Amino acid sequence: MVYQLYYWPHIQGRGEVVRLTLEAGGAKYIDVARDADSVEAGREKIVEKINEESAARPPFAPPFLIDGDIVVAQAANILFYLGPKLGLAPSSEPDRNFAHQLQLTVTDLLMEVHDTHHPISNALYYEEQKEESVQRASGFIDNRIPKYMNYFEKVLQNNPSHSGWLIGDTMTYVDLSLFQVVQGLRYAFPKGFKKHEKRCLSVLSLNDKVFLDNKVSKYLSSDRRIPFNKSGVFRYYPELDK
Amino acid sequence: MVYQLYYWPHIQGRGEVVRLTLEAGGAKYIDVARDADSVEAGREKIVEKINEESAARPPFAPPFLIDGDIVVAQAANILFYLGPKLGLAPSSEPDRNFAHQLQLTVTDLLMEVHDTHHPISNALYYEEQKEESVQRASGFIDNRIPKYMNYFEKVLQNNPSHSGWLIGDTMTYVDLSLFQVVQGLRYAFPKGFKKHEKRCLSVLSLNDKVFLDNKVSKYLSSDRRIPFNKSGVFRYYPELDK
Repeated sequence: MVYQLYYWPHIQGRGEVVRLTLEAGGAKYIDVARDADSVEAGREKIVEKINEESAARPPFAPPFLIDGDIVVAQAANILFYLGPKLGLAPSSEPDRNFAHQLQLTVTDLLMEVHDTHHPISNALYYEEQKEESVQRASGFIDNRIPKYMNYFEKVLQNNPSHSGWLIGDTMTYVDLSLFQVVQGLRYAFPKGFKKHEKRCLSVLSLNDKVFLDNKVSKYLSSDRRIPFNKSGVFRYYPELDK
Repeated sequence: MVYQLYYWPHIQGRGEVVRLTLEAGGAKYIDVARDADSVEAGREKIVEKINEESAARPPFAPPFLIDGDIVVAQAANILFYLGPKLGLAPSSEPDRNFAHQLQLTVTDLLMEVHDTHHPISNALYYEEQKEESVQRASGFIDNRIPKYMNYFEKVLQNNPSHSGWLIGDTMTYVDLSLFQVVQGLRYAFPKGFKKHEKRCLSVLSLNDKVFLDNKVSKYLSSDRRIPFNKSGVFRYYPELDK
């Protein structure tokens, strides 16, 4: 079965946690919009699918995944669906539910990161809401980064199997997502994140473990990994990084 | 089995979709923080639980639900867990996953509503970010409310069973959540929401159907339903409602 992933072709964005899982799981997939002749044509494919009038289970927004007859939307929901099929989910049901709960926390965090550069409106450019972004990013760095990092640190330390992974003793899609968070925070807030690194050593060590995964490192050095840029969730604006 | 719900005792907030489902499902539950001697003591109970050092599956934030040995956090995740047990989830797996996907869309919407009065920081009062709130709320009313409402309208119209419910032919927890959204938008943005009402008649009719549900209407007129107020997700500030 070849999965079809629908996500914006020019950014990592909210789709990157799905791409990482597909890659780390060795899945056969088509990144539909990147497979098009141009970025514009790729975006058009997504919009067409979303606007299909008659879909019984329409997605609200990308990312969404098509697997035969099944359409699954919302990144965390896609991972809940894909994880077990790709051997990247815990095996027991309570652990699977906990993995999903953690993934929803990552979702919240990504939304907050996005709003550091778009606190007023998605319909405006960053430059039109720069002053407000400076304020929002400052609170995010000082209050929210440590709150989230302390939490993931606690989950890692309390994992009964002390494996260095968040749940159980093998890597799951949530580990991949936390890796993406660390990569993104280091890119967007090199100074701001640095201030908290000393207090989240288990998180950093998980980041290193994911980096060493064979399939992940191949993906990261391939041209399938879109570089961080100024259109995605994580953006580097020096004035926001204090 | 008596469920224990942990959520702030003075607001509907993100916990209300869970309270509505527990009530509509006729569940036996303790609203732990409301059961305390004071609001302060209630809040303390939640904080204590969150700060427990040794929990193997700790929650990040309320709401969370305790069911025997199981702790489930994140509102959408709690509903995914509770729905089938209370007869308020669809019966097939693809429909259950779709229900969850819709619930995650409601989660996103609630986060956006919250940010209309807290665009800069949760750590500041509304009064300290009022000017930015006016801007954010304006974009929310003009762009986001119609986008979400059009989507739910489409889901209702494309439901193959044409039941007036979002999925299948019986009321599920997602219907209850969409009801809560309509109640909240009408409270917080009476003028702003009115502008879009004509184009979401199926959503409004779902709202009316939920209102007529016996258990729901008993709950709404009981003192267990906390009134909307100026601390929750939905807040009425005339200056934000244009």
